Amino acid sequence: MTEQPLRADDSELRGLLDGRWAHVRERARDLLQGEDFAPVNGLSMEDHRTLTTERLAKLAETGMQTYGFPEEVGGSGDVGASVVAFEMLVSDLSLMVKMGVQWGLFGGAINALGTERHHREYLPGVMSLDIPGCFAMTETGHGSDVQSLRTTATYDPKTEEFVVHTPDESARKDYIGNAARDGRMAVVFAQLQSAGIDHGVHALMVPIRNDDGSAAPGVTIEDCGPKAGLNGVDNGRLWFDQVRVPRTNLLNKYGDVGPDGAYTSPIESKNRRFFTMLGTLIRGRISVAGGAGSAAKAALTIAVRYADTRRQFTRPAADGEPEREVRILDYLAHQRKLLPALARSYALHFAQEELVTRLHELYGDEERDPHDQRELESRAAGLKAMSTWHATETIQMAREACGGAGYLAENRIPQLKADSDIFTTFEGDNTVLLQQLTKGLLTNFQDAFGDLDQMGLARFMANKVFETVIERTAAVPLIDRLVAAAPGRSGNTSLYNRGWQLELLEDREKHVVEGLASRIRRAKKDGSDGFEVFNHAQDHVLRAGRVHMERVVLEAFVAGIDRCGDTSTAKLLNRVCDLYVMSVIEEDRAWFLEHERLSTARAKQVTAAVNELCRGLRPYAVQLVDAFGLRDEWLAAPIALGREHDRQGDPVPERGQG
Amino acid sequence: MTEQPLRADDSELRGLLDGRWAHVRERARDLLQGEDFAPVNGLSMEDHRTLTTERLAKLAETGMQTYGFPEEVGGSGDVGASVVAFEMLVSDLSLMVKMGVQWGLFGGAINALGTERHHREYLPGVMSLDIPGCFAMTETGHGSDVQSLRTTATYDPKTEEFVVHTPDESARKDYIGNAARDGRMAVVFAQLQSAGIDHGVHALMVPIRNDDGSAAPGVTIEDCGPKAGLNGVDNGRLWFDQVRVPRTNLLNKYGDVGPDGAYTSPIESKNRRFFTMLGTLIRGRISVAGGAGSAAKAALTIAVRYADTRRQFTRPAADGEPEREVRILDYLAHQRKLLPALARSYALHFAQEELVTRLHELYGDEERDPHDQRELESRAAGLKAMSTWHATETIQMAREACGGAGYLAENRIPQLKADSDIFTTFEGDNTVLLQQLTKGLLTNFQDAFGDLDQMGLARFMANKVFETVIERTAAVPLIDRLVAAAPGRSGNTSLYNRGWQLELLEDREKHVVEGLASRIRRAKKDGSDGFEVFNHAQDHVLRAGRVHMERVVLEAFVAGIDRCGDTSTAKLLNRVCDLYVMSVIEEDRAWFLEHERLSTARAKQVTAAVNELCRGLRPYAVQLVDAFGLRDEWLAAPIALGREHDRQGDPVPERGQG
Repeated sequence: MTEQPLRADDSELRGLLDGRWAHVRERARDLLQGEDFAPVNGLSMEDHRTLTTERLAKLAETGMQTYGFPEEVGGSGDVGASVVAFEMLVSDLSLMVKMGVQWGLFGGAINALGTERHHREYLPGVMSLDIPGCFAMTETGHGSDVQSLRTTATYDPKTEEFVVHTPDESARKDYIGNAARDGRMAVVFAQLQSAGIDHGVHALMVPIRNDDGSAAPGVTIEDCGPKAGLNGVDNGRLWFDQVRVPRTNLLNKYGDVGPDGAYTSPIESKNRRFFTMLGTLIRGRISVAGGAGSAAKAALTIAVRYADTRRQFTRPAADGEPEREVRILDYLAHQRKLLPALARSYALHFAQEELVTRLHELYGDEERDPHDQRELESRAAGLKAMSTWHATETIQMAREACGGAGYLAENRIPQLKADSDIFTTFEGDNTVLLQQLTKGLLTNFQDAFGDLDQMGLARFMANKVFETVIERTAAVPLIDRLVAAAPGRSGNTSLYNRGWQLELLEDREKHVVEGLASRIRRAKKDGSDGFEVFNHAQDHVLRAGRVHMERVVLEAFVAGIDRCGDTSTAKLLNRVCDLYVMSVIEEDRAWFLEHERLSTARAKQVTAAVNELCRGLRPYAVQLVDAFGLRDEWLAAPIALGREHDRQGDPVPERGQG
Repeated sequence: MTEQPLRADDSELRGLLDGRWAHVRERARDLLQGEDFAPVNGLSMEDHRTLTTERLAKLAETGMQTYGFPEEVGGSGDVGASVVAFEMLVSDLSLMVKMGVQWGLFGGAINALGTERHHREYLPGVMSLDIPGCFAMTETGHGSDVQSLRTTATYDPKTEEFVVHTPDESARKDYIGNAARDGRMAVVFAQLQSAGIDHGVHALMVPIRNDDGSAAPGVTIEDCGPKAGLNGVDNGRLWFDQVRVPRTNLLNKYGDVGPDGAYTSPIESKNRRFFTMLGTLIRGRISVAGGAGSAAKAALTIAVRYADTRRQFTRPAADGEPEREVRILDYLAHQRKLLPALARSYALHFAQEELVTRLHELYGDEERDPHDQRELESRAAGLKAMSTWHATETIQMAREACGGAGYLAENRIPQLKADSDIFTTFEGDNTVLLQQLTKGLLTNFQDAFGDLDQMGLARFMANKVFETVIERTAAVPLIDRLVAAAPGRSGNTSLYNRGWQLELLEDREKHVVEGLASRIRRAKKDGSDGFEVFNHAQDHVLRAGRVHMERVVLEAFVAGIDRCGDTSTAKLLNRVCDLYVMSVIEEDRAWFLEHERLSTARAKQVTAAVNELCRGLRPYAVQLVDAFGLRDEWLAAPIALGREHDRQGDPVPERGQG
């Protein structure tokens, strides 16, 4: 590490972070101003819902919702832009989620699962908000295990209608956004039955409200009531009592029923069809990862700016200088709370950018390689889990780092915390997602993707040849070059040697995944019960997913820095990257010790390195959070906007806006 | 570990947990029933405050608030009971905190810092709520560093009055409970000045509102507005503009001003006087630790009961049995989320019981050993930090473990989380408290307790002979015996050997504390800057406090089990204790490896032991949470009260009430 002061360039840093969809971010910074999009707090649930619905209409006027829709219906067919636009709504997470429900989930499902006639009929109204809608997938009895949901859609050839029905209480649709108040139409996921044959989960358009807002015939709607956060979003429950919809309401891209009840599908395997359909909905998961990233950035920006100005406890004066209280960000303990999280936010940002790019490139490519699609799904699952856990931890820590001020609604952190809390659950429970990711790591065989339950994997592991493939998507030649140049495991390599770091995380991943595979194979050979085997290894399974993602995220960070044109900016980012790696290693250094990847002396050096990097980066902390480009009015928190400067008699820094 | 099924006795378990103040807990279970104390959610801030004030009045009618007050004024002089009563208010944390403000902080300060005339004049009205009051200590510029607060109370001998004044914005009183709406009187902490001499922080009774509720002359009151939680408590800000109060309004137990302005105090050192006064207020901190423990228990009870009934994903059927979905508590990953936290809740419960007992025994003993007092303060600081962090982590994890259901207000977890979130900050920021604790560990010398800032410690460390004293308060002979019987560091000892476990944690603490001391001494010898030295070691300082507390908590758990009369109940508790120890070691196994306290093989065994203990304890999880004795109506969450049973067609278990 150089001890020279670094002079990173603000606009270079901003430009690098803004990335490929910088124009979307700039547009959002330009459009999302003033009262219409300012953070709110202290509203009653009813008032909050009303406001959110009004804001959604204002958002619709900007046209930002059209990015993700096909050009044929007036959209711009830019799926990457649609994800980035979503993540910019950090000033109001209820609005972000309401937007996601209407245009991402509801509109997205019509777009992905419907065919041209559905697009023509519905999408213009979806974009304009003439058709407010719901994505009615989750049932109260089945959240993670979508394949087992119980709502039925039974085809009646006499009337050429589907009969949509809720057979029992556990099959009621639950937590459905837009359902309690606004939704008129719902994409309902149900077990499709025709001529006595069950064809698995399909989606249909079902009207749930009449024009006057009352529930449609046969539909019962209940309000989920107040939630921890996101109270601007009207989540509700839906029951269907033999509700009839025309045959053509089936979103029939992946499965159709003829007038006579004959079922046809381009995908023969019921299982593969299910996962293909789910796979087309991956954008929602990626959007949530981005939204969580934004919430974490906002909390960090507030906490870092506050810690940079807040003073507490006096440091004895040096000769000739007045005694002064210490800025809390000068305390190592405070740096350790905020700066590793900041480094991780940077790392995850680059990983997100890479994932969105990948989604964008594969999107709409009907001929896409199934392997690429699977990889995209694995990464999306993994990054969603990592980003949302990061957000939960970081915002919590930011709350504590801001003390009592962090508990006041005016300082934004409480709402960021409460609103984003569910991100670890919706669009896939993180624990379940990490297992899916590990499943992806354990196989290259498409046909092995039997079912999402634990058994599929255990069975597969026992019967198939196993191969672990460490795949790199980010800047492959660069990473290869760095790893090749790594000086091996000698204890003398600098901890800051990027090749050594990359190799260390790659080696850990290989070892964990291979160990898991052979553990399962071995147990299976002993004739152990498959469920028990897998269940006994569940901590190992989750660890595999996590270490994989930490490696992937590091590679994305390295590739991101490689795109940086300015040397001194890159130098700063390299230090941030070092802090990311060192804190990842520090957290898991027990593993590195147990597996003799680090000596005890070197493990202690890692802890010292985290401290050293924290101290070294402290002067740049404010610059690093400001580079996220969140407008002051989105943060809104007085403690982040100079109040503490006033109080302390410190000069208020000039700060350019977006 | 025995594989035999255990048959713990419910009432034995309950009795052990209820402990010395079982009668107070039973009384609370009896009194806190029905609409008056049931959990609420979804209220506006105004309605919530109104309700909380009404409930406080109902609570006053029960007489439970009188426990902590002297018999002379109608109390029962049972300080332990007052802490336990506070912690039982888990059905409504706003009420818990409002109770704490009125009777614990406000009334407690009058009791501890005032003299007989204040007791007579104020305490009956405090208990009856005729005098609603505030504890106005924290200023917006000084939260942790109370000694530096800036409000002044200047004596004017001409009128025999104190002039209370807020000199600048950073000196405004902030976050003051009861200030925004209800408080009529405040105990105001201010720098006492008389005849031009500053005598340090003292407390005075200052009226803040007139009878009609308007602000008293010279007092400005502002509302802190909505908060993350505890919105039933009216936190506010106070400014004083030359407010005059009679000389006798000074709470004069530790410092008095005569009519002529002469200052007298039983404690000569200004510094020692300050810390003595603060020390008398220790009960608030201990109460918060208990309250946090209750919130964590409530969340665990809800999450464990739900996980015991909620089913997801199908396990293939064994021969001849119907296929059935798996209860999520049967998954190892889910056990790992909930059961180590449950074990820690048990451990902290026993540590809390011990701390309350210690407080109770020392309370009111004017001749108490300063060493005992310091130890009590250290333990209180440490346990408050450990318990409140535990609550924050556990409730967060419970939220995720309950999925979408955990996000709904009706299921209580959101409010438990939001309400208890500030517990890590108020009554002392946890990070600051752990440093205070470490300071206590580093010295036996009362006179070294200069000031609470970091410098005092660094200076002390450089100049004084150092001695670490590993002190045991819990069941000393038993612990000594167990440690003496420990088979040493050989790798063959069972991980479940209690003596080995105790010795391991004790040895870690010694090593960490001694290492810290010599590190600071060494750096000081090099002539390094004292602030920098201490700041560089801050992670080490915090670690010292943490490992100390983990050892103390273990000893309390061991002592608690020793009080258990029933063998099979003790057997179950011993397993819970094993899980506590193993998860503590697992979390910190990098340290044990780095310092060669565990071999790599043994470290891996620790992880395996956590898994094994989770599986072994799973069948007892519901019994263990039910033993906390929280009434169903306090939990209120439908997911914890049989709704999931109904849905799944499982039989609803019979459950006795408290």
